[in-house]
Amino acid sequence: MNARWFYPLLIIATLLSGLVHWFGFNETFRFIFASLSLLLWAALLGKATENVAHYAGERLGGFLNATFGNAAELIIAVFLIREGLLDMVKASITGSIIGNLLLVLGLSLVAGGVKFKVQSFNTMLAGHNASLMLLAVIALFIPASFSTYLPSGELETLSLIISALLIAGYLLWLIFSMITHKEELAHPGNQEPVAKQAEKDALGTPPISGEQPSWSRNVSVFLLLLSTVFVAVQSEWLVESIEVVAHSLGWSELFVGAFLIAVIGNAAEHSAAIFLAMKNRIGAAVEIAIGSSLQIALFVAPFLVFISLLFQKPMNLVFTGPEMVAIAVSAFIAKSISRDGSTNWFEGILLLIVYIILGTAFFLV
Amino acid sequence: MNARWFYPLLIIATLLSGLVHWFGFNETFRFIFASLSLLLWAALLGKATENVAHYAGERLGGFLNATFGNAAELIIAVFLIREGLLDMVKASITGSIIGNLLLVLGLSLVAGGVKFKVQSFNTMLAGHNASLMLLAVIALFIPASFSTYLPSGELETLSLIISALLIAGYLLWLIFSMITHKEELAHPGNQEPVAKQAEKDALGTPPISGEQPSWSRNVSVFLLLLSTVFVAVQSEWLVESIEVVAHSLGWSELFVGAFLIAVIGNAAEHSAAIFLAMKNRIGAAVEIAIGSSLQIALFVAPFLVFISLLFQKPMNLVFTGPEMVAIAVSAFIAKSISRDGSTNWFEGILLLIVYIILGTAFFLV
Amino acid sequence: MNARWFYPLLIIATLLSGLVHWFGFNETFRFIFASLSLLLWAALLGKATENVAHYAGERLGGFLNATFGNAAELIIAVFLIREGLLDMVKASITGSIIGNLLLVLGLSLVAGGVKFKVQSFNTMLAGHNASLMLLAVIALFIPASFSTYLPSGELETLSLIISALLIAGYLLWLIFSMITHKEELAHPGNQEPVAKQAEKDALGTPPISGEQPSWSRNVSVFLLLLSTVFVAVQSEWLVESIEVVAHSLGWSELFVGAFLIAVIGNAAEHSAAIFLAMKNRIGAAVEIAIGSSLQIALFVAPFLVFISLLFQKPMNLVFTGPEMVAIAVSAFIAKSISRDGSTNWFEGILLLIVYIILGTAFFLV
Repeated sequence: MNARWFYPLLIIATLLSGLVHWFGFNETFRFIFASLSLLLWAALLGKATENVAHYAGERLGGFLNATFGNAAELIIAVFLIREGLLDMVKASITGSIIGNLLLVLGLSLVAGGVKFKVQSFNTMLAGHNASLMLLAVIALFIPASFSTYLPSGELETLSLIISALLIAGYLLWLIFSMITHKEELAHPGNQEPVAKQAEKDALGTPPISGEQPSWSRNVSVFLLLLSTVFVAVQSEWLVESIEVVAHSLGWSELFVGAFLIAVIGNAAEHSAAIFLAMKNRIGAAVEIAIGSSLQIALFVAPFLVFISLLFQKPMNLVFTGPEMVAIAVSAFIAKSISRDGSTNWFEGILLLIVYIILGTAFFLV
Repeated sequence: MNARWFYPLLIIATLLSGLVHWFGFNETFRFIFASLSLLLWAALLGKATENVAHYAGERLGGFLNATFGNAAELIIAVFLIREGLLDMVKASITGSIIGNLLLVLGLSLVAGGVKFKVQSFNTMLAGHNASLMLLAVIALFIPASFSTYLPSGELETLSLIISALLIAGYLLWLIFSMITHKEELAHPGNQEPVAKQAEKDALGTPPISGEQPSWSRNVSVFLLLLSTVFVAVQSEWLVESIEVVAHSLGWSELFVGAFLIAVIGNAAEHSAAIFLAMKNRIGAAVEIAIGSSLQIALFVAPFLVFISLLFQKPMNLVFTGPEMVAIAVSAFIAKSISRDGSTNWFEGILLLIVYIILGTAFFLV
Repeated sequence: MNARWFYPLLIIATLLSGLVHWFGFNETFRFIFASLSLLLWAALLGKATENVAHYAGERLGGFLNATFGNAAELIIAVFLIREGLLDMVKASITGSIIGNLLLVLGLSLVAGGVKFKVQSFNTMLAGHNASLMLLAVIALFIPASFSTYLPSGELETLSLIISALLIAGYLLWLIFSMITHKEELAHPGNQEPVAKQAEKDALGTPPISGEQPSWSRNVSVFLLLLSTVFVAVQSEWLVESIEVVAHSLGWSELFVGAFLIAVIGNAAEHSAAIFLAMKNRIGAAVEIAIGSSLQIALFVAPFLVFISLLFQKPMNLVFTGPEMVAIAVSAFIAKSISRDGSTNWFEGILLLIVYIILGTAFFLV
């Protein structure tokens, strides 16, 4: 991505999306342009978050980064909940997790592994990521494995308690990784702080020494607000058209939620991670991929459980069999590959094979 | 715990328990005082075992420690079997395993991690503990996963064969860890032999250089016998009152067995492990927590299968879905956290979150 | 095994097998002699493959070794498919995987561990083996876990796509391990290239410096063809008699396929691995055991899915519950034990205990 064609593309995609929406052409076009526009606004939202985070100071900035990082997925999910498409919300949560762990991480490892024989990163971070991922898998497994023993009201209670615990755990993880054990988890040697640099690279700005923002404080805040509004608008249009499009193509809700929506919502992370891997900053790429899926599982998913109460469409954390299999399988293979803090192209291929297998299975359902 | 108030408390609790039992007040009081008294006698039993083990010499002493370590749990379970409460036996086995792996280990890691930034221990031991824990999970999974394919008589046969194999495996582990590979598994540097020191600290005696017993040989043997008798008596009273109490509180057998009984039976280990962790002897704390759960899974549970034959109330090893999920989940997260031989407060939090999630789910069932 | 008695035994077993077959004695004898003869021809096939591979040059040789290594299992499975015994094919695939991971690896670790206190090997290879084994488990789990959601036609489609992906993954693994990352995965120090040396040792020829073939090129090719023909003939006879024998003994197809056929088909690897372990070449032994099970899961099983189309008896990759449990359990314990690149006798015992537990469960089904 490059600033020279990014902004023109953003404006054209948004105009086309608006035209198709208001003049009510056909649903497929509406879906396509809303997707493209959403993807670009999500990238800008990511960059604006980085900049605001910079001015907010390190602590608050890290928190902003961590919580706004998946804002696009969150907004899409809120509109899905409003429409009562709870199954598609869970499918899109599943899809975000496996998309980050398999597709983003897999492509990054292949892209990096083709240029560099072996790439290494901090193993202590890898270990903690693995334990957190296991917590996420456990938290999403318990409700389903108790679902035959519990009436639906108590499943709702269990989901709310688990959600509160996950959010508490996630906040403690931020304290642990950003305050009490910051140094231990830092990347070795020449690697820069991850999140900040990542999105910048993706947007084409030259890799500044990790501290220089792209815009003034006021412009940053304005762009954050603007892009949040546009992400919300485009998400709403996307969600409105998605059922019609899925139906006309004969695709299952599960496939649309887990593969289509997830890829659109995560596109910014995708390109950022791959760029970093190609620059041999595999640690940063791994952190985007795994960190983002952790955020979805430990923060976004439980947060949505509470949000769903506001819309009086209570969503529990009972995932379907295929979704649980997909999440567990992705977590285990990603853990097995990242645990030793060293990666290569073949490990990326393994992740991509599992992604294609899961994609095929979800498509056929 | 401190000797000055330990013995008075022990005597008062036992007297109260006897009064409530013989004068037949209400079942809830009977349950509470039997629990408190049992908890204290179990702690004394642990300490007496240590002392007898000391006089018995290293080899026999290690064996005594290993087999008497979970004597309280064993005695409670035998009374449960006599009453035909086989489901509660399995629930209490489950509870002991997850209580040690999640609650004891979690509290130890938090207690130690608050004082020390990173705590380390022998990774070879961690690796073997992980493999043994996996054997336990496998052995408890196979009967349930074949239960739809096998008639109940053959499930009994399978359970007996698995039990014999687990006990054989556990005895070979004692030979391996105490004889053939003793040095390789020893704790590095300044850490003392685990089991001996652990219980002493918990009972408040000053940490002697790992060899000095608290009592003479005769006193030790007498206290061992005395505390065994009282643990047995209090266990019987506890078990007699437990169904009435659980029913009147509206608690499920699963929750009472897996959380209430397990916490009472394991209280000695709990305090011992936490004290050790706070003294930066995390290796010893981990060994108590993980070693105790291994002993339950590989020795106590299979032993109870044979014991149940004597009472002509044959118990198989088919655990329920929630129990298997709880055991597997605990084993995996404990393994993920202990595998690298290094711990911190956040890893303790992770374990406690999983414990609370499981507790909530069992409570709601 | 020793050349002096190997060839006489081979000839006698083959003659007896032919006599019993053509004069139609009893099915049990026919089964016994076909098994014995098959076992010996499979060993010769292994040795001939090694020699032809030597003359073919390193690259092509490695490929020949890797693809012909499980030729006996493949041939038996093809005859089972022709007879429509698809369930027994899957059972024999399961049996080959768990037989290698538990029985072969377990016996090797015990045999080596009795002589050497600790044996070590390349941990990078162990890590990749673990990830590949996880891919195999995932690939065999997905079809079964989606089987309730998919009609049988789409299960067939899913199985074919997964099979194609596994074969592609396996070929890329050969490129990775034999070309792009050959040095990184090489065994440390004094250890010789694995596959070559392994089978030679098993057949009793003195361990030559890793390069010297046993026969001339023409003799090697002739023996490869001859032993392939005889393996095929004996496999056909074995398969013809197997149902009658299993029925008369009251054994289930699952047990016969997973334990009897698998042991016969893998006997050559068994003896080779154990001999290597006793010579302290545990890395080579581990590679035979784990490498062979990977080949079955990632190459032989998917290849058989395509073969089954030729016989118009389409086989899918939906394994039964017990089979999946067996494969998953074996993969996890083998991974847990081999992951640290260091082994001892007790770890071998753990593997054997799991093998006996699974064998008992399969026998009782």
